[in-house]
Amino acid sequence: MTDEVRRAWAYLSRVAEPPCPELTALVAQLGPVEAAGRVKAGRVEPEVLSKVEARQELDCAANDLDILDRMGGRLITPDDDEWPLLRFRAFRGGDVLKRPNGHPPLVLWASGPTRLDEATERAAAIVGTRAATAYGEHVAADLAAGLVEREVTVVSGGAYGIDGAAHRAALACEGETVAIVAGGIDNPYPAGHSALFHRIRRECLLVSEYPPGTAPGRLRFLTRNRLVAALTGATVVVEAGLRSGAANTAGWAKVLGRSVCAVPGPVTSAASAGCHALLRDGAMLIGRAEQVVELVGRVGELAREERHPETPLDGLAPAEKRVHDALPARGAHTVDEIAALAGLPPHQVLGPLTMLELAGLVESVDGCWRIVRRRRARLSRSDGGPR
Amino acid sequence: MTDEVRRAWAYLSRVAEPPCPELTALVAQLGPVEAAGRVKAGRVEPEVLSKVEARQELDCAANDLDILDRMGGRLITPDDDEWPLLRFRAFRGGDVLKRPNGHPPLVLWASGPTRLDEATERAAAIVGTRAATAYGEHVAADLAAGLVEREVTVVSGGAYGIDGAAHRAALACEGETVAIVAGGIDNPYPAGHSALFHRIRRECLLVSEYPPGTAPGRLRFLTRNRLVAALTGATVVVEAGLRSGAANTAGWAKVLGRSVCAVPGPVTSAASAGCHALLRDGAMLIGRAEQVVELVGRVGELAREERHPETPLDGLAPAEKRVHDALPARGAHTVDEIAALAGLPPHQVLGPLTMLELAGLVESVDGCWRIVRRRRARLSRSDGGPR
Repeated sequence: MTDEVRRAWAYLSRVAEPPCPELTALVAQLGPVEAAGRVKAGRVEPEVLSKVEARQELDCAANDLDILDRMGGRLITPDDDEWPLLRFRAFRGGDVLKRPNGHPPLVLWASGPTRLDEATERAAAIVGTRAATAYGEHVAADLAAGLVEREVTVVSGGAYGIDGAAHRAALACEGETVAIVAGGIDNPYPAGHSALFHRIRRECLLVSEYPPGTAPGRLRFLTRNRLVAALTGATVVVEAGLRSGAANTAGWAKVLGRSVCAVPGPVTSAASAGCHALLRDGAMLIGRAEQVVELVGRVGELAREERHPETPLDGLAPAEKRVHDALPARGAHTVDEIAALAGLPPHQVLGPLTMLELAGLVESVDGCWRIVRRRRARLSRSDGGPR
Repeated sequence: MTDEVRRAWAYLSRVAEPPCPELTALVAQLGPVEAAGRVKAGRVEPEVLSKVEARQELDCAANDLDILDRMGGRLITPDDDEWPLLRFRAFRGGDVLKRPNGHPPLVLWASGPTRLDEATERAAAIVGTRAATAYGEHVAADLAAGLVEREVTVVSGGAYGIDGAAHRAALACEGETVAIVAGGIDNPYPAGHSALFHRIRRECLLVSEYPPGTAPGRLRFLTRNRLVAALTGATVVVEAGLRSGAANTAGWAKVLGRSVCAVPGPVTSAASAGCHALLRDGAMLIGRAEQVVELVGRVGELAREERHPETPLDGLAPAEKRVHDALPARGAHTVDEIAALAGLPPHQVLGPLTMLELAGLVESVDGCWRIVRRRRARLSRSDGGPR
């Protein structure tokens, strides 16, 4: 990229509040240099002009690029191989475009060794409330660790609470993580996470569609959320109140055709109320990282079956179970007593008794039959017993 | 009902392990007295004979009825008004009949002032593991209290843990509750709940399809579960391990065309693992009693919307939000500065500023504009803030 082209992209990135589809279309038509020149000169159609006139004369491009260079950062443009073209195709759908800000970014400001296109090929968003509980942070960290262990990139927004727990666990496991922030990457919000952001920049990737120095604002957080959803195959909301930015990210995931997932929690916890609302609305319930991998991984990469507790009685035939049930907890019964209690004819009781004896479950003593007692430890693995 | 008829029903109730569709058909065809006579004499088709021959000669009817009378109990038969005919129609479906024991009972043994047909018209099952946590018992009690408050009967199995918590809360709120047990109602299981069962018998209803003295067994618990599901409009599993009788009840609810519901909990809690498996399998997530009433109540009896936290910025138009976002957290900006930060032409900034001023959100000082600070208590009602 020549300096002229870079400066044009940097100028265009700031001249309209992103995303600005009118400006994006102009750049696609004329290229960045010609588009920037025309915008600066005011020689554009009225629908573009109205979007750029407030900042038309504000050219901080050289300064912005200086800041970026000092950070060792880079611009990622639609002309770069690193542009996540496939991911951003999701913005073509009809429902997305109807939503305010339902458009891809013009250009991205990035810093870190990770390639955006490659890292987001197999990626999941882990998001949630800043007011997370210890439970929420624990689950976020656990999921993030499980995902990076399975080579899934953890994408989040760098906020306090769930986001931070997810980034931190991904870094701790030496996995890939991408933080997408709602202001300039030179001074990402919140300042209390500056050490975390520094580590993300050094080891993974920090991204924003806003030029350096941009302050995050309420609307920019919501606008940023669409990128978190778009750049991943699934958005997992770990904890969220009823009114939460995480629910907004989940909304973007839905409209972008991504999997919407939520982690349940106690119904008595306000921090899980937004997750439960999502689950009632059709979100996929997530309890383990493998269940997320099923959604973002290769076809057929299925989660292991959860191991159900087993008891020695599992493999028995119906008649054998019925005969076993008819034996007393203490003491022994004759065949006739067993038959009456089981409601089976006596001649249908001996076969099952023999099978149960071979299985080591019953034994005969002096012509009567009784249950073979086992060590409690073995039986207590079952949750249920009678019910 | 004459004594002869009662004795016939009592005899038939014990002579085959219920449910026995062959015996039920015979009774429907001949009436209880004639059917009992033929069974006792062995003058029945081979498919009936094979089901009854083990207990054919065992006639405890007089004794069973004595026990029932001493308890102040009654038989509920298909000939009684109290027979829950509409509820048992669910057993007619094809999928139900394919399941082992997918049949209605022959007759029910009951004790308590509550009428079974009326109580189960508007009823929900609250079930779950015996190994409940404090969280599970709290939620079970809370749901049961909320249901009876809305005149929904709480049906359960009388077990330790979730079942007991549900029954107890329903009784404490002077609501209706029905316990369906897997053995005789004279000595219901578990013995540790005898005081609870006594109270249920005195104030509500205790029911079983097994004659007095029958011991509960593994299979009888599973068979009983179908009645819990059939006699209610929805089955709510509050806590359940991966292997749990409650999941079996939920399976019956599904095949019987009832709503299957589950309460979520921490994904770190083994006692919620069965609930989460049900939720992943399509069960309805339940957090409040009203959500159950929606399923079992009258058409249109909808749960109140959950109250979302609100902030003073909720009602703002997009341009107003954008202008508000452009104002600094501290200090003030000129109109031109606001225009550049918001990315709006200056002439599009004054209107929104005026509206924000009228709403008491911003004020102008010496030609500059700043945010009006509010008491924190008011703003902290929102979960989100930026995200």
